Amino acid sequence: MERIPNILAERYASPEMQQIWSPSGKVVLERECWLAVMIAQRDLGLDIPDEAIQAYERVKEQVDLDSIREREATTRHDVKARIEEFCALAGHEHIHKGMTSRDLTENVEQLQVLRSLQIVQSKSIAVLIAFAREAEKYKDLVITARTHNVAAQPTTLGKRLAMWGEELVLAVQHLETLVAHYPVRGLKGPVGTQLDQLSLFEGDATKVDELEAKLVEHLGFPEALRNVGQVYPRSMDFEVVSSLYQVGSGPSNFARTLRLMAGHELASEGFAKGQTGSSAMPHKMNSRSCERINGFHVILRGHVNMAAGLAGDLWNEGDVSCSVVRRVMLPDAFFAIDGLLETSLVVLGQMEAFPAAIARENAYYQPFLSTTTILMEAVKAGAGREGAHEAIKEHALATVHDLRSGLIVDNDLLERLAGDERLGLNREQIGTILGDAEPLTGDAKRQVEAFGARVAEWSAKYPDAAKVEPGEIL
Amino acid sequence: MERIPNILAERYASPEMQQIWSPSGKVVLERECWLAVMIAQRDLGLDIPDEAIQAYERVKEQVDLDSIREREATTRHDVKARIEEFCALAGHEHIHKGMTSRDLTENVEQLQVLRSLQIVQSKSIAVLIAFAREAEKYKDLVITARTHNVAAQPTTLGKRLAMWGEELVLAVQHLETLVAHYPVRGLKGPVGTQLDQLSLFEGDATKVDELEAKLVEHLGFPEALRNVGQVYPRSMDFEVVSSLYQVGSGPSNFARTLRLMAGHELASEGFAKGQTGSSAMPHKMNSRSCERINGFHVILRGHVNMAAGLAGDLWNEGDVSCSVVRRVMLPDAFFAIDGLLETSLVVLGQMEAFPAAIARENAYYQPFLSTTTILMEAVKAGAGREGAHEAIKEHALATVHDLRSGLIVDNDLLERLAGDERLGLNREQIGTILGDAEPLTGDAKRQVEAFGARVAEWSAKYPDAAKVEPGEIL
Amino acid sequence: MERIPNILAERYASPEMQQIWSPSGKVVLERECWLAVMIAQRDLGLDIPDEAIQAYERVKEQVDLDSIREREATTRHDVKARIEEFCALAGHEHIHKGMTSRDLTENVEQLQVLRSLQIVQSKSIAVLIAFAREAEKYKDLVITARTHNVAAQPTTLGKRLAMWGEELVLAVQHLETLVAHYPVRGLKGPVGTQLDQLSLFEGDATKVDELEAKLVEHLGFPEALRNVGQVYPRSMDFEVVSSLYQVGSGPSNFARTLRLMAGHELASEGFAKGQTGSSAMPHKMNSRSCERINGFHVILRGHVNMAAGLAGDLWNEGDVSCSVVRRVMLPDAFFAIDGLLETSLVVLGQMEAFPAAIARENAYYQPFLSTTTILMEAVKAGAGREGAHEAIKEHALATVHDLRSGLIVDNDLLERLAGDERLGLNREQIGTILGDAEPLTGDAKRQVEAFGARVAEWSAKYPDAAKVEPGEIL
Amino acid sequence: MERIPNILAERYASPEMQQIWSPSGKVVLERECWLAVMIAQRDLGLDIPDEAIQAYERVKEQVDLDSIREREATTRHDVKARIEEFCALAGHEHIHKGMTSRDLTENVEQLQVLRSLQIVQSKSIAVLIAFAREAEKYKDLVITARTHNVAAQPTTLGKRLAMWGEELVLAVQHLETLVAHYPVRGLKGPVGTQLDQLSLFEGDATKVDELEAKLVEHLGFPEALRNVGQVYPRSMDFEVVSSLYQVGSGPSNFARTLRLMAGHELASEGFAKGQTGSSAMPHKMNSRSCERINGFHVILRGHVNMAAGLAGDLWNEGDVSCSVVRRVMLPDAFFAIDGLLETSLVVLGQMEAFPAAIARENAYYQPFLSTTTILMEAVKAGAGREGAHEAIKEHALATVHDLRSGLIVDNDLLERLAGDERLGLNREQIGTILGDAEPLTGDAKRQVEAFGARVAEWSAKYPDAAKVEPGEIL
Repeated sequence: MERIPNILAERYASPEMQQIWSPSGKVVLERECWLAVMIAQRDLGLDIPDEAIQAYERVKEQVDLDSIREREATTRHDVKARIEEFCALAGHEHIHKGMTSRDLTENVEQLQVLRSLQIVQSKSIAVLIAFAREAEKYKDLVITARTHNVAAQPTTLGKRLAMWGEELVLAVQHLETLVAHYPVRGLKGPVGTQLDQLSLFEGDATKVDELEAKLVEHLGFPEALRNVGQVYPRSMDFEVVSSLYQVGSGPSNFARTLRLMAGHELASEGFAKGQTGSSAMPHKMNSRSCERINGFHVILRGHVNMAAGLAGDLWNEGDVSCSVVRRVMLPDAFFAIDGLLETSLVVLGQMEAFPAAIARENAYYQPFLSTTTILMEAVKAGAGREGAHEAIKEHALATVHDLRSGLIVDNDLLERLAGDERLGLNREQIGTILGDAEPLTGDAKRQVEAFGARVAEWSAKYPDAAKVEPGEIL
Repeated sequence: MERIPNILAERYASPEMQQIWSPSGKVVLERECWLAVMIAQRDLGLDIPDEAIQAYERVKEQVDLDSIREREATTRHDVKARIEEFCALAGHEHIHKGMTSRDLTENVEQLQVLRSLQIVQSKSIAVLIAFAREAEKYKDLVITARTHNVAAQPTTLGKRLAMWGEELVLAVQHLETLVAHYPVRGLKGPVGTQLDQLSLFEGDATKVDELEAKLVEHLGFPEALRNVGQVYPRSMDFEVVSSLYQVGSGPSNFARTLRLMAGHELASEGFAKGQTGSSAMPHKMNSRSCERINGFHVILRGHVNMAAGLAGDLWNEGDVSCSVVRRVMLPDAFFAIDGLLETSLVVLGQMEAFPAAIARENAYYQPFLSTTTILMEAVKAGAGREGAHEAIKEHALATVHDLRSGLIVDNDLLERLAGDERLGLNREQIGTILGDAEPLTGDAKRQVEAFGARVAEWSAKYPDAAKVEPGEIL
Repeated sequence: MERIPNILAERYASPEMQQIWSPSGKVVLERECWLAVMIAQRDLGLDIPDEAIQAYERVKEQVDLDSIREREATTRHDVKARIEEFCALAGHEHIHKGMTSRDLTENVEQLQVLRSLQIVQSKSIAVLIAFAREAEKYKDLVITARTHNVAAQPTTLGKRLAMWGEELVLAVQHLETLVAHYPVRGLKGPVGTQLDQLSLFEGDATKVDELEAKLVEHLGFPEALRNVGQVYPRSMDFEVVSSLYQVGSGPSNFARTLRLMAGHELASEGFAKGQTGSSAMPHKMNSRSCERINGFHVILRGHVNMAAGLAGDLWNEGDVSCSVVRRVMLPDAFFAIDGLLETSLVVLGQMEAFPAAIARENAYYQPFLSTTTILMEAVKAGAGREGAHEAIKEHALATVHDLRSGLIVDNDLLERLAGDERLGLNREQIGTILGDAEPLTGDAKRQVEAFGARVAEWSAKYPDAAKVEPGEIL
Repeated sequence: MERIPNILAERYASPEMQQIWSPSGKVVLERECWLAVMIAQRDLGLDIPDEAIQAYERVKEQVDLDSIREREATTRHDVKARIEEFCALAGHEHIHKGMTSRDLTENVEQLQVLRSLQIVQSKSIAVLIAFAREAEKYKDLVITARTHNVAAQPTTLGKRLAMWGEELVLAVQHLETLVAHYPVRGLKGPVGTQLDQLSLFEGDATKVDELEAKLVEHLGFPEALRNVGQVYPRSMDFEVVSSLYQVGSGPSNFARTLRLMAGHELASEGFAKGQTGSSAMPHKMNSRSCERINGFHVILRGHVNMAAGLAGDLWNEGDVSCSVVRRVMLPDAFFAIDGLLETSLVVLGQMEAFPAAIARENAYYQPFLSTTTILMEAVKAGAGREGAHEAIKEHALATVHDLRSGLIVDNDLLERLAGDERLGLNREQIGTILGDAEPLTGDAKRQVEAFGARVAEWSAKYPDAAKVEPGEIL
């Protein structure tokens, strides 16, 4: 039977993310977990020979999935099969003492989650850095801001990029708190009371506390849960997956508007090195990557929904109705956000703006967007407010009508206004008023700078983020 | 790099479902589609030699995914790579005439959907048949029906099973309509106007109509869409995935209540052949399969959400923001429902009821559930309604109190009532009243029979369904 | 305490939809249900005087919600309070015989659902008719179809409208099947066994069947469920709400693309009578109504999710964890789809296309979109395929470059091609080739006509649909 | 036309939550916002007379919704109508200077969100306190913990309560961070560049910064966004609504398991004061409130979905496709979580455990749950491991069989084991081994105490939480 690959992993996720969730990667994590427990148990007085520990250490990375599968066919118990395999490789039987299956699997899955979150954190900050870089690059490029998809007021492309970037900052903050406090379930036994480890240490609760503390530290968790049942609360998965969706929101807004801008030929997501447009249709720089970013976000929304379906649905101390869901949702959600962030990095790295087309659009709309200023200046210059307002309204409506019906091609509103004595401004005066478009972008430049400064702080705090290089995307 | 498998496919889906969605299975379907078009084009007068068609036919099943991948690395275009591969194998260049990529991929994906729906349909009816079989088996087994999870009135286990079965009937009806009308996009060209096929046939619209009709018939679709853009409407995917969720609802309710019944030791999902309980905890017949059924349903809910995220979100004639979503959602939704139905068949095949425990529960609650009848009979026998009502209330509350506080173990309400002269009934009379529990199950038996008759019709209409055998489940 | 209104009802839903779900509307439906049962019980031999029935009939519409609320404060049971109120008004005590609360509420809620579905059905067909009308109006207006939001091939605006319309046809078909088979729960007693009605008719199952048949017919349901518990299966609610989402998909696609077209000033959702653009920004014809259509669809997606959360989550014969969800979800989903359809009717009634702007866009892209045809003609005219292809590629890329960098304003690709001897075509020849844009829209016209014919059938089948007039929208 | 009330508000939300989202409550918040801006503008040098400010202050609470509605019918602009109303009441025209509609509405809606979050925060901590109180009360009550809904090991009811409580702690932590950093959009003008306030202050960016800082402080926000468009990022709404869902997860798990326990008559959600069970069915203490808690959680899941549908879907600087969604989703999500928390407080305040029934269940399962210990002791006492294990297995399976088939009523496994010489333990010895069940609950007591200590910190930090009193629930 041909094996069907996980599409999200294979096509879109980075090698390091795949590694965490690969079958053999998980086996290694489990073995790390067993080793951590075993070492701590030895340190706390259990009779476990050093040579056994060394033997396990030595074979830790020898993963033979087929052999494990064969053992499972016999034992009909997946964890048991993996215990036997590891012991057979090491030639000892000292792992899994006082542990129940969930003492292994919950902690290992949380480890997968934590390490994946750290990748997402680093990559999100890399995207932030890219947003800041592009925002800085385009901070003076005046574009026509739109509301309701219709021209509204000038802004700059840099400011627009900073807007999406700042949205991502909020998600990165959430992620940071999440990672900093993400508590692991620990060794709590089948129903959460730590009975089995307590028995192992003959009722010595202090030793059990120490054992767990050592494990938690060894695995790199910031803290441990205290009151759990068989499993850690599934609302934790919900917060994790929700935070991924939140991370994807800024980039998704970026991608969506870049698709809109491409439709107006104001910008493009660019081409990968070596890629060219179709010869027949060279204008068709399809925003495939941006569309994919939006697609990943829809997938993640489905995962949020799956995670939500588990939260609050626990029976007693736990059951496994969540099992199949988490097997699918957790890796896939991380593959999807990984793909989303990789793709965002690529697009931010190769996007292009077309200043000439942007200028053309600005020129088309500027007269409409300037009428408030012209009215103000006309009044200052002595015109009656009512008459001036009436004049502007008449000319604006007429201009729109003529543009839409094809009577004119260029927006000649300013000429019309200059010719109306109710305003008392000549073409030159109007030109002077509008001469410098830059002030009409308000505080955009300082806003971009503030964003840049903020990102610089994140970049300094997480120096690895700046080094993230996206893989090639399809 | 270790390949990460699709968990849903590998662990839970049947071979025939995997085949439809496997990479090589899809390549074969594409080739069938090209062949169908090519044959029809030849029949309608295009110059395509018979030997070319034979050559393509001969190599249709020769799928070399690695070779295709290599071609894609060069062409950077997946459909082009598969065209080249097929042509190289056949030694001809006659496929894909007048076709755009979507003329291939949309139709093939719809073919995957249609064939998957047919499997789901057959397997759903198999589950119906199993529900009917079990309902018949247990149609006389009186159990205590519960509302608010508290005993309410007697029913039979057969009736309870028929209840879930009848819910599934509604979904099967929806599925039948869906399959009977599922329209394919057809050969509509890049924006849906059929321009390219029209050009190929030099503007002869009749030939284009015939070409499409032949293709539709060849692929086995009931009808074709007429007005589409680049893609078929994504709300069709939404209806498909929603219908799968609906199919899963009856079995999910069944699984959930079986988990509840297992908690009361009234029934169990049973063991697979060869499986035994843990020796230490022989009472722990964990409802793992039922939990998994509920888990599949949560996964499907996530897929409904993804499908919903695409419906109504089309820009112009289409874009590919849906692409990555559909690559994940469509196969995974079918794998999940396939696993859900397979698991349901297994559970229905091995479930057990424990009549002694059920009888014990009935006995415990029957006195409470019978008070209305006793009141009626007491009044008939001459007691004052007010006094009789007051007596029953007093004794019932006292009995509950004593049971809950451990003063008594068995429900002795009937003895208490027999001893109260306000009712005027002795123990024997009360015994006679309640002697035959069966009438208290109302019309349950006829309801079960009606369900059986209904399922028999489905079974007769779809004779293959009765032959469905679930695979082994993990 | 100020009462907080239901925003969806108050701002967006039609009076007839509000009526169905209003507190007093529901009281009247309940009374109709009681009357239907009572009349049938009388006809089947129960001792219920005609004058009692007449008395109830007379006061059926006298709804005093405050009085009912006061009764509920005493009884602490909502159904009991409404029984008492109706009986007090009528001066008799003959309703609700052998009925449990759910025998009332489930049937009444299904009646609300059915009647709401019928409104949705009628209004959806009204939207279909409007799509057909507009498609016919614009069937010859050539526009530039887009894929990936970038110009791809010509189509017509009529065809684009027919595309959305045909998507809606699929939903209307689903709706029709749903309404034609929507089964009601009927009088099944507290756990679904019909025990109480059987007791009332002293075990005469035939009479109970007849009673239910009469009720079902009186209320206007096509059929009844047979095997239920306390409640009808919640997956029925899921199918209902999903079908509403499906209905909203075509209009939502329409609204989304109209927003895109408005951004290019190719079309607008138009203004309501009396409404004008802002004087300062007369170009800002904001697509507020289209945005709202998309918003309604997002709301409905949330309702689909709520409905999905209930399906498959039944415990035993039923509980009320679904109660609060259905109180919110059912009316709100119908209010939302009602608002969506009303708004769609309004937009379809007042939308405008701007032919001059459309022509400008066509002219801008046509040269690119025509290169395939030019290549074919050049080869026919004797040019070498390779050289011609190379020439076209060079000029196309150069033209795009010059347009984007502002070196040229108009697309002069055709001039460039005319000047290149590798193609051997002069400007006039090229002009002739492209002279008639209409053939480039392929089969669009016939497609629109086919859509029109199909809608005419729906319109004939549901003659009331053509009379639907949308209310004023905010 | 009868007004349809918002069901969630009217039936389930507290007066203070309703106040925030009521139409008139919102009008007052808007006026506070205008006043804050006006005062700050005056302080920064704009010519706004003190008496105008005083006049506005005086009429701030005079809300006449009908009058506003009439104005809106004329102006066709809701914000304009409310400006006119406020000015007419005050007899001045000084509000809304340099402001665009969104400068008002975004900030006011965020204020509604922030204040609602604060209520949720306080009430969540109140629920924590109640969990801690009940956990303490039941910390020594040994119950049979279940996994897969089947008895697994002993725990205590206190520990189980602490488990749900600790899940809630995680949500409360998230909430605290959210509230502490929730940034407001501020006065950014129509596209986010602050152009209009800059014009008002003649380009003095420092004054604009000060103005915004004053506003932010006045309204009580911790910080302001810097780079926004027309609106604040909708992923903020997503984080807010997700956090509410997370808050509901612990209580939802609590409610679900209490429903399960009620089914076993081990515990009950209790009755409200004055409420009694049905006389006929006194055992039916229906878990209506717990079911409702689960229902609220399903509703919130729908709202999470709606919020997710807006995040990442912004076009350019913003549009209003989110408007109708947020009008529904934001208040309803807060009403739902408010109802969920109120109901949880009530249930925690009146829940009952039935120790006799719990002891009966413990006794039933204890023999099975003790076999590991007995085996260990038998081996210590000299039995052969293999033989002892075999003996236990045989007897356990036989006991389960006899219980399920009704041959025995009480679990007599210990007697059987005592009679088997392979174990070498007599009944008395076995009794001694199991004598003290408490140690079998492992570390449960210390876990509960740790939870209590943690809640005490929250209670000390938020002293108002302890004073929260739930309203009466339906």
